[in-house]
Amino acid sequence: MNTGMFESCITGHWFNAEAKALWSDVGTIQAWLDVESALAQAQARLGMIPQTDADKITNSAKAELLDIEAIKKGIRETCHPFVPVLKDFERVCGKEAAGYLHWGATTQNIFDTAAVLQLRASHKLILDFLHRTLDTIAALAEKSKSYTQAGRTHGQHALPITFGFKVAGWYAELQRIKMRLDDATADAFIVSMGGAVGTFSAMEGKGREIQETIAEILDLGSNIIPVRTSCDSQTHYVNVLGQLASFAEKVAQELIFLQRTELAELEESFHHGKVGSSTMAQKRNPQNAQNLVGLAQLMRSRIPLSYMSMIRMNEGDAAESNIMDVTLPEIAVISVSISENLYNLLSGLQVYPEKMLENIKITKGLILSESIMMALAKSIGRSDAHHLLYEAAMESVLNNAPFSDCIRNQLNKGDIKAEINIEELLDESSYIGEAESCVDFVLQQYKS
Amino acid sequence: MNTGMFESCITGHWFNAEAKALWSDVGTIQAWLDVESALAQAQARLGMIPQTDADKITNSAKAELLDIEAIKKGIRETCHPFVPVLKDFERVCGKEAAGYLHWGATTQNIFDTAAVLQLRASHKLILDFLHRTLDTIAALAEKSKSYTQAGRTHGQHALPITFGFKVAGWYAELQRIKMRLDDATADAFIVSMGGAVGTFSAMEGKGREIQETIAEILDLGSNIIPVRTSCDSQTHYVNVLGQLASFAEKVAQELIFLQRTELAELEESFHHGKVGSSTMAQKRNPQNAQNLVGLAQLMRSRIPLSYMSMIRMNEGDAAESNIMDVTLPEIAVISVSISENLYNLLSGLQVYPEKMLENIKITKGLILSESIMMALAKSIGRSDAHHLLYEAAMESVLNNAPFSDCIRNQLNKGDIKAEINIEELLDESSYIGEAESCVDFVLQQYKS
Amino acid sequence: MNTGMFESCITGHWFNAEAKALWSDVGTIQAWLDVESALAQAQARLGMIPQTDADKITNSAKAELLDIEAIKKGIRETCHPFVPVLKDFERVCGKEAAGYLHWGATTQNIFDTAAVLQLRASHKLILDFLHRTLDTIAALAEKSKSYTQAGRTHGQHALPITFGFKVAGWYAELQRIKMRLDDATADAFIVSMGGAVGTFSAMEGKGREIQETIAEILDLGSNIIPVRTSCDSQTHYVNVLGQLASFAEKVAQELIFLQRTELAELEESFHHGKVGSSTMAQKRNPQNAQNLVGLAQLMRSRIPLSYMSMIRMNEGDAAESNIMDVTLPEIAVISVSISENLYNLLSGLQVYPEKMLENIKITKGLILSESIMMALAKSIGRSDAHHLLYEAAMESVLNNAPFSDCIRNQLNKGDIKAEINIEELLDESSYIGEAESCVDFVLQQYKS
Amino acid sequence: MNTGMFESCITGHWFNAEAKALWSDVGTIQAWLDVESALAQAQARLGMIPQTDADKITNSAKAELLDIEAIKKGIRETCHPFVPVLKDFERVCGKEAAGYLHWGATTQNIFDTAAVLQLRASHKLILDFLHRTLDTIAALAEKSKSYTQAGRTHGQHALPITFGFKVAGWYAELQRIKMRLDDATADAFIVSMGGAVGTFSAMEGKGREIQETIAEILDLGSNIIPVRTSCDSQTHYVNVLGQLASFAEKVAQELIFLQRTELAELEESFHHGKVGSSTMAQKRNPQNAQNLVGLAQLMRSRIPLSYMSMIRMNEGDAAESNIMDVTLPEIAVISVSISENLYNLLSGLQVYPEKMLENIKITKGLILSESIMMALAKSIGRSDAHHLLYEAAMESVLNNAPFSDCIRNQLNKGDIKAEINIEELLDESSYIGEAESCVDFVLQQYKS
Repeated sequence: MNTGMFESCITGHWFNAEAKALWSDVGTIQAWLDVESALAQAQARLGMIPQTDADKITNSAKAELLDIEAIKKGIRETCHPFVPVLKDFERVCGKEAAGYLHWGATTQNIFDTAAVLQLRASHKLILDFLHRTLDTIAALAEKSKSYTQAGRTHGQHALPITFGFKVAGWYAELQRIKMRLDDATADAFIVSMGGAVGTFSAMEGKGREIQETIAEILDLGSNIIPVRTSCDSQTHYVNVLGQLASFAEKVAQELIFLQRTELAELEESFHHGKVGSSTMAQKRNPQNAQNLVGLAQLMRSRIPLSYMSMIRMNEGDAAESNIMDVTLPEIAVISVSISENLYNLLSGLQVYPEKMLENIKITKGLILSESIMMALAKSIGRSDAHHLLYEAAMESVLNNAPFSDCIRNQLNKGDIKAEINIEELLDESSYIGEAESCVDFVLQQYKS
Repeated sequence: MNTGMFESCITGHWFNAEAKALWSDVGTIQAWLDVESALAQAQARLGMIPQTDADKITNSAKAELLDIEAIKKGIRETCHPFVPVLKDFERVCGKEAAGYLHWGATTQNIFDTAAVLQLRASHKLILDFLHRTLDTIAALAEKSKSYTQAGRTHGQHALPITFGFKVAGWYAELQRIKMRLDDATADAFIVSMGGAVGTFSAMEGKGREIQETIAEILDLGSNIIPVRTSCDSQTHYVNVLGQLASFAEKVAQELIFLQRTELAELEESFHHGKVGSSTMAQKRNPQNAQNLVGLAQLMRSRIPLSYMSMIRMNEGDAAESNIMDVTLPEIAVISVSISENLYNLLSGLQVYPEKMLENIKITKGLILSESIMMALAKSIGRSDAHHLLYEAAMESVLNNAPFSDCIRNQLNKGDIKAEINIEELLDESSYIGEAESCVDFVLQQYKS
Repeated sequence: MNTGMFESCITGHWFNAEAKALWSDVGTIQAWLDVESALAQAQARLGMIPQTDADKITNSAKAELLDIEAIKKGIRETCHPFVPVLKDFERVCGKEAAGYLHWGATTQNIFDTAAVLQLRASHKLILDFLHRTLDTIAALAEKSKSYTQAGRTHGQHALPITFGFKVAGWYAELQRIKMRLDDATADAFIVSMGGAVGTFSAMEGKGREIQETIAEILDLGSNIIPVRTSCDSQTHYVNVLGQLASFAEKVAQELIFLQRTELAELEESFHHGKVGSSTMAQKRNPQNAQNLVGLAQLMRSRIPLSYMSMIRMNEGDAAESNIMDVTLPEIAVISVSISENLYNLLSGLQVYPEKMLENIKITKGLILSESIMMALAKSIGRSDAHHLLYEAAMESVLNNAPFSDCIRNQLNKGDIKAEINIEELLDESSYIGEAESCVDFVLQQYKS
Repeated sequence: MNTGMFESCITGHWFNAEAKALWSDVGTIQAWLDVESALAQAQARLGMIPQTDADKITNSAKAELLDIEAIKKGIRETCHPFVPVLKDFERVCGKEAAGYLHWGATTQNIFDTAAVLQLRASHKLILDFLHRTLDTIAALAEKSKSYTQAGRTHGQHALPITFGFKVAGWYAELQRIKMRLDDATADAFIVSMGGAVGTFSAMEGKGREIQETIAEILDLGSNIIPVRTSCDSQTHYVNVLGQLASFAEKVAQELIFLQRTELAELEESFHHGKVGSSTMAQKRNPQNAQNLVGLAQLMRSRIPLSYMSMIRMNEGDAAESNIMDVTLPEIAVISVSISENLYNLLSGLQVYPEKMLENIKITKGLILSESIMMALAKSIGRSDAHHLLYEAAMESVLNNAPFSDCIRNQLNKGDIKAEINIEELLDESSYIGEAESCVDFVLQQYKS
């Protein structure tokens, strides 16, 4: 009986399988054991507990050795999420070594540090997808650098761009987000082993040293002051993942739009057998893109919880730390899945430049009013030129008349003799500004 | 391998088991089959499909007959969440009847109506817990109607109340929320069977009649116009559940506070064997209350999605409907769990009226400044009385002097001869206003 | 120097002027005075204070008589938002009457009840706009009941609808929301006059009677138990306003889409002189619709605050009540503005049915695959028919071949002899299902 | 008539005056003019427009020269937020220079770059307050490094800490947030001058050069690719401000708690004349702290809008950019105010170490169970020791018996001969772990 979107046979495939494994019960308990093991090794190194017992602990730190059913029962009985795990782990370690388990630590130390291990592993998955996505975007920008396309603002044709220019904008944005994500790991990927209230009370004065040794063993940073009520660094990491979600949704929304029946400028990958509807056989829906929108919104809905969870009372506050304990896994799994879906979406994209060219001609020249305006501005000033073009454009719309005629009409009305070649100025492909060099510039910036 | 808070061996027990079963894959698929069955029966009644085939469909509509693995595989291949279920269901129905399955319907009709069936079932669970909670609260209010307690505003002692008065406030609030929840079902618990775009296009002109017949069969309402892009009624229901979550969190936060070591005016239920900490053996934490806070915040984090999901483009929009498809189950399961936890929390409460009396004396009378002020106001006016008491209170705080002395001091200073009995006015239990009658009034209101 | 979107010369016109006046400082202070006046009158009726003093208070209760600068200064000095207002009001009332001002009340009683008065006034504005909007939508649905238009799901042409059918869906949704809004006022529009901790402590045992008398004077309900920490009823009202915001955004997004250069099926009102861009003279942007989207998102961003504000500690909690004190005005002003803008947007709409007809033909018949499928289903069953149409549709897309040819091709391949008239079945206007009768049905429902 | 929390005479003083001036209409329009001026100067340098006209523009770029009433009227008529400003600015510049105004730019270029100028100015205010706050916190941590205080987790006494240790945790967290805020400026404080669709279409091929020159003039960065639909960098900056808000709320909530009547371990600054209640003269409320909580929640409610605004369609999308245009000012003003209030709150704090010592003794030793457990663990292992202490503690609670007696009782029961000095181990001040050295460590880290 599966409940929840990750394990459901209906929606489970929306989510990256590796990420789900990392954050499964087995993955979580293994991470807890890894931290207990590192704690024991560190304490052995510093002479606090016998090395042989530490080794027994380390050798016993395998999730598959635990009795999950017993743990489940124990958790219900004690109302404590970790003591039954510890108890069963003691069984596996044997009485002697068991006496040195969890020495000087408190539950949340183990939970927080283990979550960091899991987060680091899912971070690697994210990064890998982002690198591949960036490569895909770069290639797409390069290839479509000169595909003239209607630039649209506020839902209306504005000025020509190239499709590659649009894509290069995505490249720059995703690069920034990736860098921020990497930056965020420095604060977030740390060991906290301060004990019950963060003072290393039960560490015989060697608390900081032990924490630093664990950090060395696990290849993590060491918390500068392991108070249990600071989770700003996790929140910061989550915030940047939220930016990734918004970015992915932006791209997905743009692709859904450009794939619309009336636009048809591109299409997400399709294979024979993919079904769009149980009743409309013709449907070729942008399913991946729509799924991506959904994932992005699901992810972002969890962000306010991360801010809320920063507000932890006193020296520990389960009301708020509980929330991150269950939400961080959701955020991580969804974020890996967003990264994977974004990669799949972009790498499978079909682009139709001819259709782009066809669509740009819909307004019969109106899309180039700025081109005429700037040419006119040299003789009559920018402001008057804008006014003249406004009148010409409105005339064109009202009377459904060719824009060039209306421009001439207005020039005559105003008795303006401007030496401009209207037809030339109304050529879409010649007014793409620095679109192409922008693509080159962006791609070069991130090369080194 | 379990991923997700509902199925996890660590957190699974936070959530009501019946609610999880209702919204599990099996529960969901069964609800889908129930709707297909009702659709077939309705169409048979109206002569659109043969009754024998409808009966075959109805008899085959058992989730346990389906091949879940085949469905899982099919969903991955077709990228469609329902067509593979339908295909496997056709297998169970047999070729003949299969030809009449899903007649004139589209996937979202089945999903939406099935979700209503599930929602109604979890609504019943919620209501049952709310009724028991209301009874519990009523009894608690009655019992503690006269337990004098410090009323606190902005974190500072304000004026005396009784604990029953506080509890009666909860009673009224929960009654209002329960009524709203019931009201919300009228719009939300309906059949939608409008087909692909809501026009009953494939129903041979009998669409509305079919939908109404299904509604009769399933004991639901019938959608007045089954456009697929209205989900305001679900959102409304969810909004009220959000109020329930906030209410539950308020109560939980109040109990956590009143249980604090420094207050100790009450304690949530505790049993020998309940463990508060892996390192601090003495801890008796308000775990249920803290869990409840967490559940409430988790629930509320999903509310913005319900508003977002109302904004569905055109005649159908998977980007947004997907979100509710996975979020409504979360909301329902969490909400049942909130209701259950709230009931457990309140029904297990230990209340310590002597400690309440002890705490109210902390300020040595300052808590009764209003009592003196109103007595004085009769002779010198409310405003001057407030001023005099302010001076007396500040003097008392600064010099750590008895409040009554400082009052006399100020009266002398101002040369005011007021016939007031200061000692009498400073008796906590005699200045509880209409606290007790408020309890009676509230309980009577909801009796009929 | 104006700061804030309401008063800014740049954005101030987004917001309804009457609503801004209602919630301005003057509007707020007047509402406070109105409540103080009603309190005095009620107490005079019950013999607690002299009638002449109550009348002086009532006659003095005019915001324009107060010294706003003095109040401003006083608030800074006392750090209290009301005591300086009270003090200045005492000055206006004269020493005698002043002594009976605010008798037995606390600041939040005045604030909460006054906010209800303001909310009721802005509710009337909202209702008025909603009624006019509903009339406009009804007329639009009626008029365009038979305008055939492409129904679109997931961004792709799905099946024909009529524009009136889409509009009728809006009608039903807005009616539901309006009714909920009206229902919500019963709980929300009430007097709370319980004093400092809600027990009517300073009301000489007549607290409930006084509160009920005030309710009578102000034509409001009376709080069943005036605890200061319940704001579920305000939250409920705000929740429904959130549904209104989402509904308005949905309509606005739909109109922005249908106005897109590539669609051009309608256009929001435009007047000569309306400017779309400082550099692109041709732009006719859906500015009203885009503003409406913005307003809706601004409004909804405040909803989580309303849930948060329900969680008030103890007997009063300024941290949370402060938030509603400043956010409720924002919500009210934005909501009136949403209502006004929605009315303006819909009443000014230009609709182009010919363009709708043109667009529906883009897929050259694919949009009618269900029509063929259901005809075929009678002979070969629904499932096989879906399969055949899928193959035909994919062939049509891949080879850019006429759909009817591909259907025949597939029928031949399968050696299927179906007596269907393909050309007839591919006529868009004849496959609109019960679209038209749905419009009639919806409009009739709400007539009585 | 003031509407809106910033200008209200009731709540205006919650907000920093300088920040309000920066983001007032005058502040905004001045920033727009500053950008237009820089644009003209850059174009003059590059020979695109005459230097004399550029100088006229620069000299005219003074908000006080504009006719605000005319602008207000123009905005209503044109429905455009900038064209009327431009028109009035043209008037001030004189016909000749006016012809070169806004050359090659689009409105959003001006808006976005101007907002950066305003954001930089308010950033300076924030930083200044944060530096002062950090100094204050450091001094407080140092001073109270050895004030023994009850450490509390989940609302219950846990283990001793020192107050300075708690404060040092704040120091580290605020340092991290400050650094992130500084890091975020690099991406966010940039010039965007790409014209209508970002391609520098009207810049005669010198677009990037012009943008870089403006950046030099304004001392900002230059947008790598000035697409108008990327606002991730603003969002990132806002995200970090959200962390600041959560941090401030955490501190404020902690202080509100520690100031509670029952705790009284500290108090926010108070002055004679500060009033807590209109009816309870004795009230000394934590008003600043509660205001700070409110500000923090108001600020955070705007964060989801920043994520939403990242999702901008095509090459420009007023629906979403509008939202940031009005929300960024709110976020900036509130964030400066949070910083100021946090500084005021902490710098005015009164701390009562004797009361801390008094409170830590409430549990009569139970707070030190870990101390005993770790001592016992050496002989009987950690797990058995935990069990023994659990029994002793529960006995102590149930029978209200001295903890030391119960420990001895349990040792006898188990026939355990442990050489531990119970009384010594139950001394609160000797079990503060590395609390003091943690303070030193944290303060040193940030010194260099």
